[in-house]
Amino acid sequence: MKIYVVLIEPEEEGNVGAIARVMKNFGFKELVLVNPKCEIGQEAYARAMHARDVLKGAKVVKEFDPSEYDFVVGTTAKGGGFYNVRRFSVTPKELRGRLSGKVALLFGRESTGLKNEELEMCDLVVRIPTSKKYPTMNVSHACAILLYELSSLKEEKRLAKKEEKEAVLRIAKEVLSKVKFRRPSQGRTILLTLKRVLGRAELRRREAYTLAGMFRSIRNAMKDEGS
Amino acid sequence: MKIYVVLIEPEEEGNVGAIARVMKNFGFKELVLVNPKCEIGQEAYARAMHARDVLKGAKVVKEFDPSEYDFVVGTTAKGGGFYNVRRFSVTPKELRGRLSGKVALLFGRESTGLKNEELEMCDLVVRIPTSKKYPTMNVSHACAILLYELSSLKEEKRLAKKEEKEAVLRIAKEVLSKVKFRRPSQGRTILLTLKRVLGRAELRRREAYTLAGMFRSIRNAMKDEGS
Repeated sequence: MKIYVVLIEPEEEGNVGAIARVMKNFGFKELVLVNPKCEIGQEAYARAMHARDVLKGAKVVKEFDPSEYDFVVGTTAKGGGFYNVRRFSVTPKELRGRLSGKVALLFGRESTGLKNEELEMCDLVVRIPTSKKYPTMNVSHACAILLYELSSLKEEKRLAKKEEKEAVLRIAKEVLSKVKFRRPSQGRTILLTLKRVLGRAELRRREAYTLAGMFRSIRNAMKDEGS
Repeated sequence: MKIYVVLIEPEEEGNVGAIARVMKNFGFKELVLVNPKCEIGQEAYARAMHARDVLKGAKVVKEFDPSEYDFVVGTTAKGGGFYNVRRFSVTPKELRGRLSGKVALLFGRESTGLKNEELEMCDLVVRIPTSKKYPTMNVSHACAILLYELSSLKEEKRLAKKEEKEAVLRIAKEVLSKVKFRRPSQGRTILLTLKRVLGRAELRRREAYTLAGMFRSIRNAMKDEGS
């Protein structure tokens, strides 16, 4: 899947720059400007920040040609209600699995969005669920959310392995075995609680080492006292 | 859960306005500005568009007091790597289930983000997975994505009910029964295909009526021909 961000008659260069920036943030670079109504100048480059290359590489065309793409996705702030077939939409989360090939993501004018005839060119329409009191998002915000959902970037996390979590619990158990509880079940409850908390916390390896280190220090301190 | 968007020493009023707008888009209104480094003037109000009320209602404070909140969430563009405990983070999608009560969502300065001592005040840190080539998002874009994930707004869809989909298939079957296929299994394959396509398409009620209407028109046209 290759995403093309297509801005139909953009009116504000600041938004074009902001969109270039968020495209680069999510690793996309194909920007198409259809009959832009603004200059792409200083303000656009200021807002693009380190995405000058995306802005500079933007393709400017007079008309949008849907036949160049395998999939054309429209965006709308307005829901379809019951009758407006043209605006029946999916949510951003539902978008991903439905796309393939060359995908054009169409964003309309800041003032009036996409026209009906432009929406009719689309294979599907996406709408970000927004408040009825103020549904219309800034175009670069809408773009940020869609690219975020379409991005395949993932957070790399080095989570603690089972053995590493068990090592924490083993040393904790050793420490607790030297504590005299009123009720003998108390130690077991504490250990179970620890296990569950670590289980839910998405413990990183580094954090497992630190916690094991904590219990080890405590154990050693107790030995010193004991001697 | 009540979300407070807290901007630590914001530097650009345009971003503050853009954040007010996206807050209103997602139905949030509690904005806190901690020791702002910019005036909140014309540019902020221009970018806020119809969210003047959010911007006007912003609480300006000298210092952030984490004790006022049940949960403090930090934001960072930089990952924690292996050693930087302070920046170990969750993704926006993982955020939602973990929060409750009064939640402060902290955004740092445009230039330098949150300081280490500010990150240390946080109960957890969230990071939007971005490209290594250009990880730093515009603060209002980052805010848009987090509020989008935290928003409980849902798209209302009037999907076709089982009976309505079955009605389409029933009339289609009637039409197909009048068609002579070379192989008798062909009609069954077509009906099954229709059923599956309608099943995957998240058919709206309105669309079910339209398709049933299509087959009905065809059936009637065939009757006319037959007579």
